[in-house]
Amino acid sequence: MAVTTPDDPALAPGSAPVPSVEEPPATQPVAWRHRHLLDVDVLTTAEIDLVMRTTDAMAEVLARPIPKVPALRGTAVTILFYEASTRTRVSFEVAAKNLSADVVNITASASSVTKGESLVDTVRTIEALGADVLVMRHERSGSPYLAASVFGGSVLNGGDGWHAHPTQALLDLYTLRSRFGGSLAGRKVVIVGDILHSRVARSNIWTLTAAGAELWLCGPSTLLRGFEAWAARGAGGRSFTVTSDLGAALDGADVVMALRIQKERMAGGLLPSLREYAARYGITRERLAAASPDVVIMHPGPMNEGVEIAADVAIDPRSVITDQVTNGVAVRMALLYLLAGARERRP
Amino acid sequence: MAVTTPDDPALAPGSAPVPSVEEPPATQPVAWRHRHLLDVDVLTTAEIDLVMRTTDAMAEVLARPIPKVPALRGTAVTILFYEASTRTRVSFEVAAKNLSADVVNITASASSVTKGESLVDTVRTIEALGADVLVMRHERSGSPYLAASVFGGSVLNGGDGWHAHPTQALLDLYTLRSRFGGSLAGRKVVIVGDILHSRVARSNIWTLTAAGAELWLCGPSTLLRGFEAWAARGAGGRSFTVTSDLGAALDGADVVMALRIQKERMAGGLLPSLREYAARYGITRERLAAASPDVVIMHPGPMNEGVEIAADVAIDPRSVITDQVTNGVAVRMALLYLLAGARERRP
Amino acid sequence: MAVTTPDDPALAPGSAPVPSVEEPPATQPVAWRHRHLLDVDVLTTAEIDLVMRTTDAMAEVLARPIPKVPALRGTAVTILFYEASTRTRVSFEVAAKNLSADVVNITASASSVTKGESLVDTVRTIEALGADVLVMRHERSGSPYLAASVFGGSVLNGGDGWHAHPTQALLDLYTLRSRFGGSLAGRKVVIVGDILHSRVARSNIWTLTAAGAELWLCGPSTLLRGFEAWAARGAGGRSFTVTSDLGAALDGADVVMALRIQKERMAGGLLPSLREYAARYGITRERLAAASPDVVIMHPGPMNEGVEIAADVAIDPRSVITDQVTNGVAVRMALLYLLAGARERRP
Repeated sequence: MAVTTPDDPALAPGSAPVPSVEEPPATQPVAWRHRHLLDVDVLTTAEIDLVMRTTDAMAEVLARPIPKVPALRGTAVTILFYEASTRTRVSFEVAAKNLSADVVNITASASSVTKGESLVDTVRTIEALGADVLVMRHERSGSPYLAASVFGGSVLNGGDGWHAHPTQALLDLYTLRSRFGGSLAGRKVVIVGDILHSRVARSNIWTLTAAGAELWLCGPSTLLRGFEAWAARGAGGRSFTVTSDLGAALDGADVVMALRIQKERMAGGLLPSLREYAARYGITRERLAAASPDVVIMHPGPMNEGVEIAADVAIDPRSVITDQVTNGVAVRMALLYLLAGARERRP
Repeated sequence: MAVTTPDDPALAPGSAPVPSVEEPPATQPVAWRHRHLLDVDVLTTAEIDLVMRTTDAMAEVLARPIPKVPALRGTAVTILFYEASTRTRVSFEVAAKNLSADVVNITASASSVTKGESLVDTVRTIEALGADVLVMRHERSGSPYLAASVFGGSVLNGGDGWHAHPTQALLDLYTLRSRFGGSLAGRKVVIVGDILHSRVARSNIWTLTAAGAELWLCGPSTLLRGFEAWAARGAGGRSFTVTSDLGAALDGADVVMALRIQKERMAGGLLPSLREYAARYGITRERLAAASPDVVIMHPGPMNEGVEIAADVAIDPRSVITDQVTNGVAVRMALLYLLAGARERRP
Repeated sequence: MAVTTPDDPALAPGSAPVPSVEEPPATQPVAWRHRHLLDVDVLTTAEIDLVMRTTDAMAEVLARPIPKVPALRGTAVTILFYEASTRTRVSFEVAAKNLSADVVNITASASSVTKGESLVDTVRTIEALGADVLVMRHERSGSPYLAASVFGGSVLNGGDGWHAHPTQALLDLYTLRSRFGGSLAGRKVVIVGDILHSRVARSNIWTLTAAGAELWLCGPSTLLRGFEAWAARGAGGRSFTVTSDLGAALDGADVVMALRIQKERMAGGLLPSLREYAARYGITRERLAAASPDVVIMHPGPMNEGVEIAADVAIDPRSVITDQVTNGVAVRMALLYLLAGARERRP
């Protein structure tokens, strides 16, 4: 099979065939060239499109009575999480098992990590133990790049520090495309909260602007530091609006994504109190009256209900928060599948 | 298949056919109408009998060289434990895997729970991740009812606070029925220890009295608070004896079940010291001399040997403590199987 | 099948046939008589040879695209670790799953162990839950012997206190035999570091001297306590050299194995500082110049890079540290397989 490049016509939007999940990925004409997925910024529009269509195929698998295909039988997936997590770790675990991969979980609290072993040694050990794919979450930004530099298989970033959360951005994109008939062109998408410390926001900036959305980032100015300057500089061809004015942001919004407020940020003096944050930036039904009547409500979870989002907003009929979780499994199945295909084609 | 009701003649004792574990539950005439199992108090005598006979079938599976049946292939079971546990968590995990279900473990210490996410959000997330059955243990009484109110699949209570531990009560009942030829009618069963804080005692009151046992609850009066009044009021048609007099309780007893003494209770002033408890209420060989010569010795584990039970009593030939553990796997297989069948029949 | 004894001619080196991993172990003429493996000191030369040849067969399985055989289908393996670990726990888990066993993980931090249950009760419970093989690591020397005295299946020691680490010794032996064409006769093997507290050193003394290596143990004299006297007494027919002189030890060495320095040892006054240890005993490229040009560099992991081993030495082309990890999976597959075969033959 020919190795494809970013300029390959096979990567033009819509031209890559949807992979069949009934066949092993290596025998399919999958136009995917990435061994790792560390952030979304390396994905072309055509590649994002391929992820979306592969996710469609996986969502179809999830709808079956037995949501399992043998695509990754014999592939060893290690899930290495240095931060506490329910939804993301379990999402990867379920995704890998649905593809019949063999899964090993390693959480930092119960591992040699507590003995001070370096990340590089841990990654080398995991490879020597037979892992083909390493899914990792780490509190230090850039860690997955270090891991990828020594790991012989594929690294899939499950979130690194403030830096990137590519699977979250892709599941958010998939969720919104499903809602808006496949295109976000011209849709006003507002992300509200602690933008400064958010890997979710950083990765979403790339995919949402690439999809043609009109992106707004909103929060207290202390939690927007640097983003205004970045937006003013052009942000690498990306265009988005940065504001502390929630009213302006919500006005006519098609999508509102609330981000989790971390209580530990207050220690640094960046936030006066959760109560004050909730009073000024919490997403409530009243505030959403200014948005589109069909506004789509999102949250990457876990939620602090009553702080960044009101409890009734979270379960509003317009909320797609549980859809995000379900789509997360499908997106992660798609990415594991595409990465395994790229791995198979290595010489 | 017709939906059965508690008054359905199909629920009369012995009339429901034993399900065949070789067939998927949905195609069987199983007279089980519960989507969740949160406590034993909703079970009719006929339903308890169905659980017992289904457990017989599962015990037969466990006796095979490869103790596995495909009954729950494609069923996703999530085990969510907010309290530390070996035996119960592993028992559910083994039970689910023996039925070929897909199992995901979530323990509170390594999860978003530490991030303050509400139980309701956690349950919604677990459902969105694809879980069909949620097995949960939580330190707050009533939590599984809250979970069941939002979960689209089946909730199986693995113990909630002081309230209920239905699988323990059913495995205790199964163990005793096996010992006594199927009937507990007229057998004197004594539960000794911290009745006040015991979900094991509360659930056992229901099933043991329903089975016709002569039930005694015994312990220091501080650990019986409220139970005397409850017994005097009739306890909803249940009849049992409450006493601090261990000698009277053990006299002629057919069964003695010692409950774990939690060291943390002493902080509240309810217990003077473990040593004094052991001296007054610890189950020793000497004390058991007053019981039936064939007295059956039980403990739900984990044991504080030398406190509520002497080490030699725990491994006495009359002890069924390890039978309880083994039967626990069979009972949990039966319940997962019955709940999955009820789930399949939902419209 | 006839029960073999240590004097059985079938146990002479090389005479036992290599087991076929495609057949269930019970139907094979495997000359393995141990129900448990608690340390290497019970293994005859012929038995060690059988482990090595079985490991060859397992390494061949690991080289397949799908590294899985059905040999242990239906065998329940419980991995009970009371100490934090990545590589050893995962290595056992991967080994067991590669043989199609059913694996349950129990780590002390999330289990009843925190409730003070005794090891004996925990082991009895694990057996009652259906475990056939118990892999355990415990901080107290001798714990696996206690476990084996009550467990009805097979106990495989994954490391106990300072005492023994048989699977590590066997994987080290396998790694060295692969490097040296099958024989260690006359090879100078140097173990450097905290010999006193090392179960790795203790188990390796047995297997390396049995294999004919010229063994040297080297470290600060405070960390060699008792070993000089042991060597002088003859150490049960074993012969090895104990020295604090790193120069003498490294001179012409064919193998250098650095052991992890535990920071907590300094509290006891046995070590002045990590920096001083590194300065005097750290394995660096400069120091290795005195060794054989083809010296084999080993470390059981996890490493304190810059303390007992320099970072560049760990990834030197002569380092086999990742081979040790990979061979660990194959050795553990071999041992699980042999133990299961012994279990099958029990009357």
